[in-house]
Amino acid sequence: MSSPLKIHILGCHSATPKANAFPTAQVVEIRSQLILVDCGEGTQVRLRQNRIKFNQIKHILISHLHGDHFYGLIGFLSTLSLLNRQAPLQIFAPKGAEEIIRLQLKLSKSYLSYPLKIQALESSASETIIDNSKFTVKTIPLDHRVYTNGFLIIEKAGDRKLNIDKAEQYPIDKAYYKKIVKGADIVLDDGRRIPNEELTFPAELPKSYAYCSDTAFKLDIVPIIRKATALYHESTFLEINEDLCAKTKHSTAKQAGIIASKAEVGHLILGHYSARYKNLNAFKTEAESVFNPVSLAESGKTFVF
Amino acid sequence: MSSPLKIHILGCHSATPKANAFPTAQVVEIRSQLILVDCGEGTQVRLRQNRIKFNQIKHILISHLHGDHFYGLIGFLSTLSLLNRQAPLQIFAPKGAEEIIRLQLKLSKSYLSYPLKIQALESSASETIIDNSKFTVKTIPLDHRVYTNGFLIIEKAGDRKLNIDKAEQYPIDKAYYKKIVKGADIVLDDGRRIPNEELTFPAELPKSYAYCSDTAFKLDIVPIIRKATALYHESTFLEINEDLCAKTKHSTAKQAGIIASKAEVGHLILGHYSARYKNLNAFKTEAESVFNPVSLAESGKTFVF
Repeated sequence: MSSPLKIHILGCHSATPKANAFPTAQVVEIRSQLILVDCGEGTQVRLRQNRIKFNQIKHILISHLHGDHFYGLIGFLSTLSLLNRQAPLQIFAPKGAEEIIRLQLKLSKSYLSYPLKIQALESSASETIIDNSKFTVKTIPLDHRVYTNGFLIIEKAGDRKLNIDKAEQYPIDKAYYKKIVKGADIVLDDGRRIPNEELTFPAELPKSYAYCSDTAFKLDIVPIIRKATALYHESTFLEINEDLCAKTKHSTAKQAGIIASKAEVGHLILGHYSARYKNLNAFKTEAESVFNPVSLAESGKTFVF
Repeated sequence: MSSPLKIHILGCHSATPKANAFPTAQVVEIRSQLILVDCGEGTQVRLRQNRIKFNQIKHILISHLHGDHFYGLIGFLSTLSLLNRQAPLQIFAPKGAEEIIRLQLKLSKSYLSYPLKIQALESSASETIIDNSKFTVKTIPLDHRVYTNGFLIIEKAGDRKLNIDKAEQYPIDKAYYKKIVKGADIVLDDGRRIPNEELTFPAELPKSYAYCSDTAFKLDIVPIIRKATALYHESTFLEINEDLCAKTKHSTAKQAGIIASKAEVGHLILGHYSARYKNLNAFKTEAESVFNPVSLAESGKTFVF
C-alpha cells in the first residue's frame, strides 16, 4: 500500500503575519518525502510548532516573490546552517530569488554548511522540474501581479499488489515476490511462463496534489491539474468582493470551486483568506455551491489523503 | 518632569527564532518617541503582541546584518505599506542593507506608500546619526564578525523647573513662565534683572540608553557609554564558556558586568542568551559578581527608567 499523502498547513492567510494568522507555508509529505511549499515570515517557528524535522526537507518550492510567500526563506536557510545541516537542499523559485539569498548571505558573511542549489523558474509554460523515484513536480503557470507558479506534485506509481493465493498455487520461491510486485512475469522450472497479471492486483492509483496560490481565476490550469487527489486553491475574497480580484489578481471561493469542479479533483482546500473576513465558514459555503467536498485550510491542520 | 525612558523587549535570544525564544528587537520610547532597535524575524508579530502602534515608529536602528537582528525588517517595511503609512521612515543600518531592501521590493514589484530613507553606516568611529529636538543618537562601534554598531540614545535636556514661590515674589506675568523654564532671565518694569537661576531649579538630568549587541568584550566603548541611565549589553555566554567568545565575537555575562561597572551606568540589562543555557538566572548572578543592579531581558518585558 502506498503511504498517505499529507498536507501540513503552516500558514494560510494573505498579506501580513499576525499573532494567529500566519502567511503562506505548507509541507507536503509524499512517499515519506517532505517538500516545503512557500515560506512566509515565521515559517521556521511554525515548522517547529508542528514538529516537522527540518532535516527531512530536501526540496523547497516558492510560488512567487511576494513577502507573504517568501520572507521566511532566508531565515530558514540560515537556521539549517546553524544546525549544521550537511544534506543538499534544492530550491525552485522565480528568477531573482537566488540573487536576494546570495546577497543576504554575503552581507552577513554567512557560509552555508550544506550544498544549496537554487533553480530559477521563468517559463510561462508548465514544465517538469523534479522527477525522481518517489514523485514528479510540474509547474502550474498562474496569473498574479508578479511571475507566479503553482505546483502539481504527483506520486510515482507504487508496486503492484501480490495475489498471494494465486502465487502459492505455483512452486515459486518467496525470494521472487519482490520482482513480481515490480511487474515481472515468472518462468517456472518446467518452462511455463506465468504472466504478472495473474499473480498480482494493480497498484493503487498514484496520488497527486495541486497547489495554486496566488492567482486570478484561470481556466487554463484545468487540464494541468485534472483529477488531482487534492487541490489547494487560493480564495482571497468572497464573491461579494469579486471586483477586488481584477486589481489584485486573486480569486473568490466560488471561482476556486469552479476550477475544482471543471478539473474533477478529489478534494478542494481553500486558503489565503483576506484579513477583512471574520467568519471563514462563508468561504466553504460559497465554494460548496459549485463543488464538493471542500475544506478550509487552517494553520496547524494536516490533511491526509 | 521628563517622560519616562522605556525599553520594550520584543526579543532577546541569540541565533534562530523558536516558539518562545525570539531573536533581537527592542522598542525604545524616549520623550514619547518610538525607536525600533534591531528587527529579527517575526518582529512585526511581536510589535502587535506588545500593542505598539506601528505608525509611531519613525526611526529604525540596525546594529548589523546577521539574520537574528535583521531578517524581520523587510516584512515590517512591507506591512507598513499595506497599512498605507504616509509618514516618512528613516533607517540607519550598515552599508548593504539598502541594496537588499530595494532588491526585495523590486522583485516583488512593491512600491512603498511612504518615503523611506536608509542611511548607510560604515564609520569605525562613533558618530552622531540623529540629533533632533527630543533626542540624540550616537553609534557605538562594536567588535563582531561583521561590521556592527551599538547605539547610544540620549534624551535632550528638558526644561528647568519653575521655583513658583520665588517667581510669585516678583510682579511677573504668568505668560513669561514658559520662557523662564527655557532658561530666560527676566527684566522687570522697574529695570531690575532677575537671573534665571533665582527663579528656577535645574532640569532633571537627561536620561540615556546604551544598546550594545552583538560584541566581543570591548573596553573602548566605556568612554562612549559612561554614566548611561541603562545599558543593554549582550551576554551570549557564561564565563564557563568564555573560550567560545573569541571565535564567535560575543561576550560573557561577567564581561558585560565589567563594562557596566567601568562605565558607571545606572542599570545593566543582559540579553542575547545562547540557546545552550536552560537557566538564565546564572547570567544575572554572574554579572552581579562585578556590578549592580542587573536585570535579565525577557521577551514582552518593559523596563522603565
